[in-house]
Amino acid sequence: MHQLIDEYFVPAFDMKALNDSAVVDNLTGRIAVTTDSYVVSPLFFPGGDIGVLSVCGTINDLSVSGARPLYLTCGFIIEEGFPLNDLRVVLESMRAVAGKAGVSIIAGDTKVVDRGKADRLFINTAGIGIVDDGVDISPLNVRPGDRVIASGSIGNHGISVMAERNGITFDPPVLSDVRPLNGLVGEMLRKTKNIHVMRDPTRGGLATTLKEIAGASGYGIVIEEEKVGVKPGVRGACELLGLDPLYIANEGILIACVQREEAEGLVDAMRKTEAGAEAAVIGEVVDNPKEIVLLKTKIGGLRILDMLSGDQLPRIC
Amino acid sequence: MHQLIDEYFVPAFDMKALNDSAVVDNLTGRIAVTTDSYVVSPLFFPGGDIGVLSVCGTINDLSVSGARPLYLTCGFIIEEGFPLNDLRVVLESMRAVAGKAGVSIIAGDTKVVDRGKADRLFINTAGIGIVDDGVDISPLNVRPGDRVIASGSIGNHGISVMAERNGITFDPPVLSDVRPLNGLVGEMLRKTKNIHVMRDPTRGGLATTLKEIAGASGYGIVIEEEKVGVKPGVRGACELLGLDPLYIANEGILIACVQREEAEGLVDAMRKTEAGAEAAVIGEVVDNPKEIVLLKTKIGGLRILDMLSGDQLPRIC
Repeated sequence: MHQLIDEYFVPAFDMKALNDSAVVDNLTGRIAVTTDSYVVSPLFFPGGDIGVLSVCGTINDLSVSGARPLYLTCGFIIEEGFPLNDLRVVLESMRAVAGKAGVSIIAGDTKVVDRGKADRLFINTAGIGIVDDGVDISPLNVRPGDRVIASGSIGNHGISVMAERNGITFDPPVLSDVRPLNGLVGEMLRKTKNIHVMRDPTRGGLATTLKEIAGASGYGIVIEEEKVGVKPGVRGACELLGLDPLYIANEGILIACVQREEAEGLVDAMRKTEAGAEAAVIGEVVDNPKEIVLLKTKIGGLRILDMLSGDQLPRIC
Repeated sequence: MHQLIDEYFVPAFDMKALNDSAVVDNLTGRIAVTTDSYVVSPLFFPGGDIGVLSVCGTINDLSVSGARPLYLTCGFIIEEGFPLNDLRVVLESMRAVAGKAGVSIIAGDTKVVDRGKADRLFINTAGIGIVDDGVDISPLNVRPGDRVIASGSIGNHGISVMAERNGITFDPPVLSDVRPLNGLVGEMLRKTKNIHVMRDPTRGGLATTLKEIAGASGYGIVIEEEKVGVKPGVRGACELLGLDPLYIANEGILIACVQREEAEGLVDAMRKTEAGAEAAVIGEVVDNPKEIVLLKTKIGGLRILDMLSGDQLPRIC
């Protein structure tokens, strides 16, 4: 274990906490904290791997809370016999994307279990960030008339992982959208501190996230199907396989609600960033019906979007 | 998953971070951060379970860094079919011991994997604490002449888990020493801020921890075997099974180095606490030989204690 840590983990992260705790400087502001475990299968998929996912997922959970992510911890559970070269690739992915996002991985832990007692590699990350003064992201802020903004097209992550798992290839390939959103959120908050709520629609997809916002706010949400971006590859895969892109996991987009007057300017600001290049208003918050999400279909119908019960695609993150 | 979280996790922890991040008050001071994954097998053992272990282990990593633990996150990886009653017991253990230690579990995550893809239950915890001004715990502070203090007897956790795993019973039973050490450390720091280093001798046991301190400080350590507490049950189990208690994992004791003049008063203060009732000076730091740990045996010999290579007992935490 000492050797594994010295040879693989120390060079990858320059960690401060090989024993016990990492001690960092004083932090000023409200502290935001989150954690997620990552059990994605397969570990490598078009557009990313478990390492990128475990760093971005936690960065994004902090970001959509309005926090600036600063520090991550990571815990590895490794199945005996897991190829060290694959471990090296995963660690390098983590190092690279954390560096790109300006986040430090400061503490880590590894446990090895017997062959057959885990599925190759699981990673847990926890993240710490700062919520600056004046930032208050909560579904309780949501009001009727608010515009609902999506930062990009949906379904890319889930379809990428599902296709890789089942040996299906698309031409052009469907790439996971996994990426850090803290840069995008930083630009959004520079444009306006008055963002009512943000969420990243991961497990359960866009529909589940909107349903959660509707439930927590007490209001309803109406989404226009034709405004929700779905790339041709994702659309084709979903049609073939009988999946609904509205319920497919994403790892590189966010949903935001802002008051109507702020929406256009915010979308313009988002589009200037790489992560928000396809940002668009996709719907609005309504007073009635309460706690319901409705989809206006392209042919003019209305469909109720309920929460996903059971995983449409398990082990997607 | 929503149902699982609502029914089991929310009542257990009163979590703030069911979605995305928990936001806590401003923290003042240096922030200490740590993480550990727990894969102990079996999940329940005399004196504790994986839940108690996952809370105490992370509290203790913060504590021996001189930090006051404040917040924990927890990530659960659950094998499909894991009994919900067992999960409830583990969650209750976590809630109870976190409450006793005055630490809040503020964010959590659960992932379920197919049967056979994990060994029942793995838990990751990450912890956040504050290092107060004037506290500086580091092996670089260690000096020749320092006294080495152990807060209790060794080997109890590892023998308890090993016995349970192998269906061995002792009379009286050997109980794991798993417990939070933040109260003890608080008392120690009230007695003197001038504690040079602290460590909790978990994986690899007392010998490995001392060897790490010796290596990091550049000095040597001499331990007197007759001063190291080993309970009769642990001694008997080790003799029977050919194990060395010096290398058996502990989860409820710490090692501290302080200058000679401070040692007696500190031990007295420690003994007034439950966790430190058996505290004793067990050895001292020496200028020579450098980076070596020597054991003065009861019959007067000297034995070099090296780092454990390979796990004497795997999946002990």
